[in-house]
Order: sequence, then C-alpha cells, then structure tokens
Amino acid sequence: MSQSVDSAVSVVRTHIEQHRAAFLDDLAEWLRIPSVSAQPDHEADVRRSADWLAAKLKETGFPTTEVWGTPGAPAVFAEWPAEAPEAPTVLVYGHHDVQPAAREDGWDSDPFEPVVRENRLYARGAADDKGQVFFHTLGVRAHLAATGRTAPAVNLKLLIEGEEESGSPHFRALVEAHAGRLAADAVIVSDTGMWAEDTPTVCTGMRGLAECEIQFHGPDQDIHSGAFGGAVPNPATAAARLVAALHDEHARVAIPGFYDGIVELTDQERELFAGLPFDEEQWLRTAKSYATQGEAGHTTLERIWARPTAEVNGIGGGYQGPGSKTIIPSSAMVKLSFRLVAGQDPDRVEQAVRAWAADRLPAGIRQEITFAAATRPCLTPLDHPALQCVVRAMGRAFERPVRFTRTGGSGPAADLQDVLGVPVLFLGISVPSDGWHAPNEKVELDLLLKGVETSAYLWGDLAENWRHAP
Amino acid sequence: MSQSVDSAVSVVRTHIEQHRAAFLDDLAEWLRIPSVSAQPDHEADVRRSADWLAAKLKETGFPTTEVWGTPGAPAVFAEWPAEAPEAPTVLVYGHHDVQPAAREDGWDSDPFEPVVRENRLYARGAADDKGQVFFHTLGVRAHLAATGRTAPAVNLKLLIEGEEESGSPHFRALVEAHAGRLAADAVIVSDTGMWAEDTPTVCTGMRGLAECEIQFHGPDQDIHSGAFGGAVPNPATAAARLVAALHDEHARVAIPGFYDGIVELTDQERELFAGLPFDEEQWLRTAKSYATQGEAGHTTLERIWARPTAEVNGIGGGYQGPGSKTIIPSSAMVKLSFRLVAGQDPDRVEQAVRAWAADRLPAGIRQEITFAAATRPCLTPLDHPALQCVVRAMGRAFERPVRFTRTGGSGPAADLQDVLGVPVLFLGISVPSDGWHAPNEKVELDLLLKGVETSAYLWGDLAENWRHAP
Repeated sequence: MSQSVDSAVSVVRTHIEQHRAAFLDDLAEWLRIPSVSAQPDHEADVRRSADWLAAKLKETGFPTTEVWGTPGAPAVFAEWPAEAPEAPTVLVYGHHDVQPAAREDGWDSDPFEPVVRENRLYARGAADDKGQVFFHTLGVRAHLAATGRTAPAVNLKLLIEGEEESGSPHFRALVEAHAGRLAADAVIVSDTGMWAEDTPTVCTGMRGLAECEIQFHGPDQDIHSGAFGGAVPNPATAAARLVAALHDEHARVAIPGFYDGIVELTDQERELFAGLPFDEEQWLRTAKSYATQGEAGHTTLERIWARPTAEVNGIGGGYQGPGSKTIIPSSAMVKLSFRLVAGQDPDRVEQAVRAWAADRLPAGIRQEITFAAATRPCLTPLDHPALQCVVRAMGRAFERPVRFTRTGGSGPAADLQDVLGVPVLFLGISVPSDGWHAPNEKVELDLLLKGVETSAYLWGDLAENWRHAP
Repeated sequence: MSQSVDSAVSVVRTHIEQHRAAFLDDLAEWLRIPSVSAQPDHEADVRRSADWLAAKLKETGFPTTEVWGTPGAPAVFAEWPAEAPEAPTVLVYGHHDVQPAAREDGWDSDPFEPVVRENRLYARGAADDKGQVFFHTLGVRAHLAATGRTAPAVNLKLLIEGEEESGSPHFRALVEAHAGRLAADAVIVSDTGMWAEDTPTVCTGMRGLAECEIQFHGPDQDIHSGAFGGAVPNPATAAARLVAALHDEHARVAIPGFYDGIVELTDQERELFAGLPFDEEQWLRTAKSYATQGEAGHTTLERIWARPTAEVNGIGGGYQGPGSKTIIPSSAMVKLSFRLVAGQDPDRVEQAVRAWAADRLPAGIRQEITFAAATRPCLTPLDHPALQCVVRAMGRAFERPVRFTRTGGSGPAADLQDVLGVPVLFLGISVPSDGWHAPNEKVELDLLLKGVETSAYLWGDLAENWRHAP
C-alpha cells in the first residue's frame, strides 16, 4: 500500500506539473471576467462567468453541466457519476462571483488582469473564490490519471453559486428547489482557508448567525428635554439599557436560555486550539483592536470559533449631527447579531431574545423586533470518517501534520447542511494574507497547487475509507 | 392707600383702554417683520426688527436707545433713568428674533401677517417673544399716567436680544462687553409664561444645562463580527453601558457627586406645586408620551422643575441603514444633557461626569468627551422682596391669587444672573396653548393687556417696597 500511495503521489504530481501552465491560463481567463454580483453593471459579467465555468467543467469531463437561474445571479451545477453505483456522493460548494474591486482602491495592478509576482497570482477572486473552485478541475483529472479511472471514485457534484458576495439571497430557495439533484452524503466547502502558509488545517465548524433589529418608540415626536426631561421614558435610554443587559460581568450572554443545548468544546479540541501557533498581539493587529475581551474561561480562539456571541452592529437614536439638540428622541434602534454554535437552534434563540427584550421593556416605550433569516451553525466531529479522509488527503499533499480550526463567520453552506441533511466539510488552501475583499487579493501558487493535489487524493480516499449513509 | 391703589388701577386701565388700538397696531407692524435669526435669508429682517424696536422705544420715551451689534444678529438696548437717584435699577430681558415659520407648515393664515380671531392675535412671535417685550412699552406709559411721573419710578433698562432662537451664541460675550451699561439690581425676564389662562403664576427658577458628547473609539475600522466577534471590545456596547449606568434603580442620576450641594425643595414649595391644578393625563398628551417616569419620591412637576436630570439626546454607532451588516463598529457616540438646579455648578458637574465616564472605560476603548458651554440654573427664593413685588403687581392686574411655578428649560437669562450678579425674576403672560415654535402661534389679547397692566404696576411697587442692594 505504501508503494501504491507513493506511486499515486508521483503520478498526481507529474500530472499537475504537466498541466500547470494550462490550468493557470484557464484560471486567469476566468479571473478576467469581473463577476461582481453586488454591482448591477456587472450582471452580464456574472452570467458570462457562469457560462464560462459550465463550459470549462464540460471540457474537464463532467457529463452534466447546467446553469441554474435564480431571481438574481445564476449558479453552476455539474455532476459526474462514479462507475460504482454504491460509491458515496459528494457535493462541492463554492462561488463564482467576486467582491467589487477598482484599481484606485489601492491595487498595484488591474484587479481583473491577473498577474503573477513572486509566485503569487494577483487578481480579484484569486482566492475568494475562483481559485479554490478551480483547483477541483485539475484535481479530478489528476485523480483519474493516478487511478486509471474514467470517472471519479465518488459521485461528484458541484454547486457554484453566483451571489455569495451579495449575501446569497436566493441560495436557500435554490437548494430547496433542486434538493433532489443535489442529494449527497457530504458537502465539501471550498471557500475557506487554512491557518498559515506552513500550517495546513482543516476547518471543522462554522458559527451560525441570528440577526435582529429592535426599534424603541417613545414620544410621538422628539420632545424638549427641558420641558419634559426627567419625567417621561427616553427610548434611547431604553435601547442602551437593553444593550447593556446583553452580557453579564463575565462577558457571558445574559439572555436566559441562550446557551441551552450548546455543544461544548471537548478537552481534545481545546488542546488542539491551544497547540496552534497563535500570536495574540499579531491577531489584535489584524483585528485593528486594542485589547482582547470576551467570555470568561475561554481563550481568544475559543471565543471566536466555538462560543456563541451577542454583538451590537449598529445603534442609533435622536440627534447625531454636529453640536447639540436638547431633545428626548422619539425613537431609537439597535441592530444585534448573535453568532451561534452547534446545538443552538436559531428559532429558539429568537424566542429567547424576544422574551428577554419584552421582559425588560420600560412602561411607555413600545418595542418592535424584526429578525432576518438565520443561518445555522455547522460542526463536524473530529472523528467523523469523512473528515479523516480530508485530513489524510491534505496531509499527503502538504507532507505536514494537518491541524484543526473552525471559522467564526457564517455562510450559506449551512443551508446545504440543513436542506440536504448531511455533514459539511471544509477544504480550503487560502491564507490570512490573501486579502479577501481587500485590494491586491492573491493566491499563493504553491498552495493553489497543493489544493489541486488534495482534491486529487480526496475522492479515492472517500470511496475507499468512508462508509457513507446507506 | 386702598383708595390710592383703586384710583391707580382705574387710571392704568383707562390709559390702556385708550391706547389699546394703537398699541396693537404697532405690535402688528413689528410682527410683520420676519426676524428669523436662524435663517440667513432673514438677516436684513432681523436688523430691521432691531431698528424698528429702537425707534419705537425712543417714541415711548426712553431717552437712550441703541442697537448693539454682535458677530451675529443685533440686540436693542434702552435706558430710562428714574428721577430719584436712589431708585433701584431693573433690566428687562427679552428677544426680538422669532422661530422660522411658513404658511405650509400648517398655519391657518400667513405667519407674518398678524390677524385677530376670537380675541387672539395670531402671528409668529405674538407670544415668543415680541408680544411679551412689547407690553412693557404701553406698561411704562400707563405707569407714568397713573403716577403723574415724567420718568419711571425705577431706573429702567431693556436688553432685547436678536439671537435667542438661534441659541444666543453671542449673548454672554455681549453682556460681558456691556456689563457696566447693563448694571442693575434685578433682571426681569419677559420670555416665559404662566400656568393657564385662569391661573396667573410667577416663575421662580429655571434649570441650568450642561451638555456633552462622548466618542468611543474601538477598532481602527469596522471589523467583521464573525471573524472577531466575542473577542474584542465593541465601542457601541461601551456607549450603551455608559448610558445604562446614568441612572440607578430609583431613576436617580448615578454619577457620584452629581447631587452635591443642590438646593432641595422646601415643604412650602412642594405644597405650592402640589396645589396647582395639574392634570397628568393632559400633560402626558402634551409630552406626546405614554407614561411618566422619573426620580423616586418626586412628582412630575418636581421632576421637570426642581430636580436635575440626565438625558440622552442622541446615540449612534455602526450600521444604521436598512437590513443588516455584521460588523463590530469602529466607533460610537452619545450626546448627553444634564439639567441643573440651584446649587449645582456646571464645572463641578463636568468634572463629575468626566471622572465617572473615565472610571467606566473598558480596556481597548478610547474615549473623548467634549462639553459645550454650560448654562447655570436660576432660582429666586419665594420670600425675595422683589419677587413679592412681581406677585403683587400681577395680582392687581389679574385680580386673582398668583401662584408659583418654575421652568424646566434653560435660557440665556442665566448669563445675566452670572455676569451681573443679580437675581432673575420672571414676568410672562403666555400660556401653554400659545404654540411657541409651532404653527398658529398666538397670544391671548386679554392676557397681553394684563401683561401691560402688570408692567404698569410693577415699577412703582419695586421703588416703594424693595430695599435693593446698596
């Protein structure tokens, strides 16, 4: 087996070396399409990007490639069945739309004219997410080359959406509408990153998100703070008091029931987090912040990856212009967001927030709470067999031990988990310096090719070692 | 004495009756000048209003009338010395500028074309404040007619400013620059009102005002609440917590030292307030509010007139647009105002607020506090002899018992108290229904003429009964 592994590695690497130039040329062609989903001017470009990808996947060998329309930007679906009918089915998720970018934002070169400098490919979308979608194309070809197959070892499906950078407004509906076609045993998300250039990692979970706006209505109009001050309730004070009551003195969220049912970190996970080479000073600089603070009894990494939070995203009420205006404002509002971890149900969190806010409502103030659509948390246990396949494939490609992270953010992949009812795994090779959403976005070419290589090893490993759901 | 009083009343009333038509015609002419100090378009009108008043005061008999320039709108000064050199000196304060007004704001007639309907004179400035300044012109003439004098019984000075509706930005400097000319034994402010049409009242105090803006700086820019949420301090949370800490559970201001040295209400004042015909439901409708709330142990009238307050006039931070934005904001701010009562020193209050805010500053948040220029509180004790003269003059005019109020607002009259170092008394005949700053501002003609009559009785009473400062 060791012999066949080595030989497989050798074939994969040779295949990648032989096709590297064409692969990069193709990627550059795709990156030249400014598929900015948030800007109506680029609507045609986003459609062009979808068509380009569908054609390229067809060329790669996928027998089925389709462009799926939405009320917004289109998604690309591709499917390549395995020869063995009992093979597991894997759905790869990514997106082909990109963040806005303009040379004058601080780019050293045209964001839509890819260029390689010092073994890095600079372009909008290089890492987020075209590069990380595209490594699967050469990956699956290398997989076939190394195994002598004519079809992948797994039933391989791709769903590459076109609205991720606009908040994926139609994604859940799209997944629900096509749930049958998308049915899979696991989802592989290639839209994240790893800890550092020299530290390959697998992300095992993503926080969920519940968001609300609370309006506080006091007097029917702004009233004079001299004539009425001190004698009627002030809605801005009510808003502030509710925000102040969000956390207790240990920086724990003080909403009754908020933590009910959450999956606590295991000792093993806490040790693995603690073992990562984490420089808190450096992290603070990235956060552009001047102190760490958070839930007592937890480290910074635990706080951002594995603990639920309550944050004020916006607060407003009364006079905010220059100088002063002696009023009691008629209304105030706060926008709150809650990051959720495994075991938390957004509906139960919403009920808990509503009950807590209603309970603290002062007499004479009217409250209106609006919740946006929530995103559920994802978490794959460390010992999940499919996760072990990802770790093994990545370890073979990088020839280093693979460590574990989570991500504090929230994403549409959770909709795939919900609707399809299957675990979500993360395979990403981007690094923090890649500049997502920033000027001079890039991808490290060595890491991009390690992504190709990991993809090449993964499908065989999954078919061989993962006893998927019957 | 009773005989001479009766005869004086009779002469005063006859004089007023004889000159009423001309008085109202003159006032209407003044009201036609749209002296809106807040609108640069009306700069010439404000100057014209000052010139008109100076000329009218000259015609009334004031030997000295001057228009005093400021960096903004001009004030009018007039002086009429008493014959007796030992007579007390009284300075009347009012303003000749008015609030903005436009027919389309909801006026039933042109705001600058005075009209009498149902014995009410409708025009912008009818009550606030041209009508209440102007009643002194006929008042002093009636005083002379009733006493056979050729000059008032007191040294009478008038200072009628032109920027009150713009916040009196240059008033204090003006008073300081002319302190010698303005020297007086008491100030009479005719820019307030009385309790109700059938309840003549004298206001005995005005709250002071300290205002600040507190900026809270967190991350150097808005940061992602998923990537960093729960692990760094949020400046909007810091702002909200400070606001929430403003009051204790008894709705008392919780800033250490805030209440130090305040002059408490006497039992007599509390009884007098409690004896006013106060309909709290009606008051709430005026406040356009849905509940009363305030410092424990005090009534609504005590809370708005005689207790210091802390109110949030504005709060803001982070994303306030439609929908949501998952950020930890870079900064937040609150605008606070504190109404002050006698015994509170704005400088000490500022120090107390700064110390309290600094004490509660979370690690990693930077705070900047800016205080605006403060206004001191005014309070005249109920037994002050000059106050008794005002009460007596008003009682003779209205033929009803005169009761006592205070005002919750704050005004530039406090600068006269500070700079000249003399008590401030209030003589006003406006009523709550007069619509200050609102469409269809009016003055009740009967009350306006009672103002004339009160002014006619006051100067003799002050000269006779008030042993002023030597």
